[in-house]
Amino acid sequence: MESPHSHSHSHPHSQSQSKSQSQSQFVCRWYPPAFDIRLESVPIPTIQHPDDAIIKIKFAGLCGSDLHVYRGHEDVNETHICGHEFIGHVVALGSSFHSGSPPSRPVLYSYLKVGDKVISPFTVSCGECEYCRLGFTARCISSLLFGSPTLQGCQAQYVRVPLAGGTLFSLSTLSLPLDHPLSLPQELSSLPDPALLLLADILPTGLFVVLQACTHPKLAPIFTGIPWPHSLGHLTRDVLLKGCTLPFLSAAERILDVAIVGLGPVGLCATLALLDYLTRADVRYRIVAVDPNGSRRAKMQKIYDALPEDAKGKSADEFIVSDIPDVPKVVQAWGRRGCHAVLEVVGTPSALTLSVSLLAPSGVLSSCGVHQSPQIPFTGRELYDRNVSLEFGRCSAHSIFAAAVGLLLRRRDVLGAIGECSIIDRVIPLRDAVKAYEAFEKGVYGKVVFDPWA
Amino acid sequence: MESPHSHSHSHPHSQSQSKSQSQSQFVCRWYPPAFDIRLESVPIPTIQHPDDAIIKIKFAGLCGSDLHVYRGHEDVNETHICGHEFIGHVVALGSSFHSGSPPSRPVLYSYLKVGDKVISPFTVSCGECEYCRLGFTARCISSLLFGSPTLQGCQAQYVRVPLAGGTLFSLSTLSLPLDHPLSLPQELSSLPDPALLLLADILPTGLFVVLQACTHPKLAPIFTGIPWPHSLGHLTRDVLLKGCTLPFLSAAERILDVAIVGLGPVGLCATLALLDYLTRADVRYRIVAVDPNGSRRAKMQKIYDALPEDAKGKSADEFIVSDIPDVPKVVQAWGRRGCHAVLEVVGTPSALTLSVSLLAPSGVLSSCGVHQSPQIPFTGRELYDRNVSLEFGRCSAHSIFAAAVGLLLRRRDVLGAIGECSIIDRVIPLRDAVKAYEAFEKGVYGKVVFDPWA
Ligand SMILES: [Zn+2]
Ligand SMILES: [Zn+2]
Ligand SMILES: [Zn+2]
Ligand SMILES: [Zn+2]
Repeated sequence: MESPHSHSHSHPHSQSQSKSQSQSQFVCRWYPPAFDIRLESVPIPTIQHPDDAIIKIKFAGLCGSDLHVYRGHEDVNETHICGHEFIGHVVALGSSFHSGSPPSRPVLYSYLKVGDKVISPFTVSCGECEYCRLGFTARCISSLLFGSPTLQGCQAQYVRVPLAGGTLFSLSTLSLPLDHPLSLPQELSSLPDPALLLLADILPTGLFVVLQACTHPKLAPIFTGIPWPHSLGHLTRDVLLKGCTLPFLSAAERILDVAIVGLGPVGLCATLALLDYLTRADVRYRIVAVDPNGSRRAKMQKIYDALPEDAKGKSADEFIVSDIPDVPKVVQAWGRRGCHAVLEVVGTPSALTLSVSLLAPSGVLSSCGVHQSPQIPFTGRELYDRNVSLEFGRCSAHSIFAAAVGLLLRRRDVLGAIGECSIIDRVIPLRDAVKAYEAFEKGVYGKVVFDPWA
Repeated sequence: MESPHSHSHSHPHSQSQSKSQSQSQFVCRWYPPAFDIRLESVPIPTIQHPDDAIIKIKFAGLCGSDLHVYRGHEDVNETHICGHEFIGHVVALGSSFHSGSPPSRPVLYSYLKVGDKVISPFTVSCGECEYCRLGFTARCISSLLFGSPTLQGCQAQYVRVPLAGGTLFSLSTLSLPLDHPLSLPQELSSLPDPALLLLADILPTGLFVVLQACTHPKLAPIFTGIPWPHSLGHLTRDVLLKGCTLPFLSAAERILDVAIVGLGPVGLCATLALLDYLTRADVRYRIVAVDPNGSRRAKMQKIYDALPEDAKGKSADEFIVSDIPDVPKVVQAWGRRGCHAVLEVVGTPSALTLSVSLLAPSGVLSSCGVHQSPQIPFTGRELYDRNVSLEFGRCSAHSIFAAAVGLLLRRRDVLGAIGECSIIDRVIPLRDAVKAYEAFEKGVYGKVVFDPWA
């Protein structure tokens, strides 16, 4: 692994870079209307604002949500550099970065240095607006998505990061005190860079879709054994509820039934996050993981089989990988009219329809799919008649980062590897991006990581 | 107030009633397709199953959801007796009710006696199935709604209650030990019967729509001051999250902005439940309560003005009653791109559209409206792009009953009265039901309580 400081002196884009430089870099750009990816030479980005950082990319991910643009499904008409997942090194910083940065600003403005190794969540967030302060960094008022017309992407050799002090995580601050807001666990530095890249999007997003379901008040009776709404006593701070005098739930009644719809890379991460959450909470489960693509199902099964026993829960727990036509029978056989929760990791109306059909009354549909313009395919009556909860939206990858780091370290056996039994399928040169997009779009490749320097 | 035992001997429908009896009663029946309510004489119901109870109605409510059937909006084509809110006395019980009832059955099978005064949630629930045990009694596998083709309603002199031991609450068990599952606070017996009738539906439902919002994980940062997802530490039992090292929220950042869409009787109850919840949690608020009907807005304002100061929160708290065209300006003036939560208490697509338009990114839409067959009027993209959470469905009135009793007692100043500054507009004879339905449907009457014996 490269030393985190190897770039600070060797590269011209240090804090003192001059505007007259116009060196070029090699990038992957998307052209409208669809399926048109071109490898091109463009100028290396420069500092445009005091809060900016310029990052030299070590690895960049190819992600399922890149395909929405690739296929022309987003209302995007402008050419732009693709990609929103990267790990790299700081080569230039704006003037906001210095030891005298005011304490009211995100702490990274005081600590980040040229040469530091950084990971970026897939969206920019300021760390200062109301939404960031609430923890909803995905909805920062200054939010920008890398690899979109408003912010050039990172399937490139260099990328500009606006609001970098609120956005980035530095792996070079590992020596900070453990209780420091910037501190990350030391063990991270022993993981390979493609594994760390999972922290940019798909591991936080997989964890997000799990947390949205498992922390929903409707699942609290399973986790606590206490019937709703008494199970919410801690949330309501006993404001409304007297002590529960109803019978508590037996162990046999506390088996969580979950369907995971979509076994792409995010679906695999969601499955690992769910197993981790449930085994650590000591809650028994029946899980059905669904995908129409046989190679995705095979990968899911291999990853599950390779997990150590203590990561799989109790011996009675069920984990079934299923094609779409078979999944209703699997859930019917469980005998409770559907699952407590369904994780929807696809982003299409048909995935939503399938998901709701697998949900028991009073269930939770947690969606992290990037949904498009079609209307939601449910009537008001079916949602009312089944007491459905729906959770939509983008992961606040910055807020959830520390939790994703914990998961990555606990599941480093799977997440730290590359190949058949891991999330990451292969690392390939960025110059092969055209082929990679085609193979990924067809489901022939799993998760791809690009090396822009190979 | 009538003695709770005055019926047990005086009325022929005791436990020993004979099948040959066919006395008639006076009821309010609905006829398809719409707007056709008839007062008729029909046989008094009899015990059909060992779990049944026959109740002599003291008062029956007229409710907004009766109007869905009245207007022909439900897919209902069969004539039936209307009404789902009642308070009354037991006049006959099936053979399941006796002191030797097994402890595995709901305790009321052991305690309920002919002559007892009872309140019924608006749906039947067994208390024994998985959904009841989880606390989701509205989705009991044996659930039936009073006043529907599958269960005759209570705008009548008598009603049959199936699964009565799992469904009813007895006010005649006030002398039980306080920690007994059937115990209700003594003070309840001093409230007038029309006020107790609020416990059948609209007060639990108003509380339900509030609880769905206020206990949602996305509002936890406001209630705890801790950013998401660290605010969920108690829910995740520290399973995934290390301690929060982010800055906590200041008092100024912890003001909850809520819109209440619909100020019918349930909307008024929801408003009272919300104010009670927030003032007891000591959380500041800005609330906008919205309805197109001027008399409903006037009633809302009068009720708010009549509240004691300690029920209104801090002096800086805002409570604004608004017509629909003005509400966007009210919310815009708060300067945060929308509300943290919107309570939708109407049940139409236009109410949903308005509600989502008033919601800030990462907000919670809590709906208790009885939605019909139109498709939900949102695209996947708008839900994804704004991280919307949607909560739909029917209140589990049985599970939430104890919490609603607490609210009723704390707010007895408003809820215990009848007239201009209360939820209940008027008590009128059931024989005037045709006129009452017309006036209620037009918004001329507020909440109506029927006396079937006047
Ligand atoms: Zn991604
Ligand atoms: Zn922000
Ligand atoms: Zn009602
Ligand atoms: Zn039940």
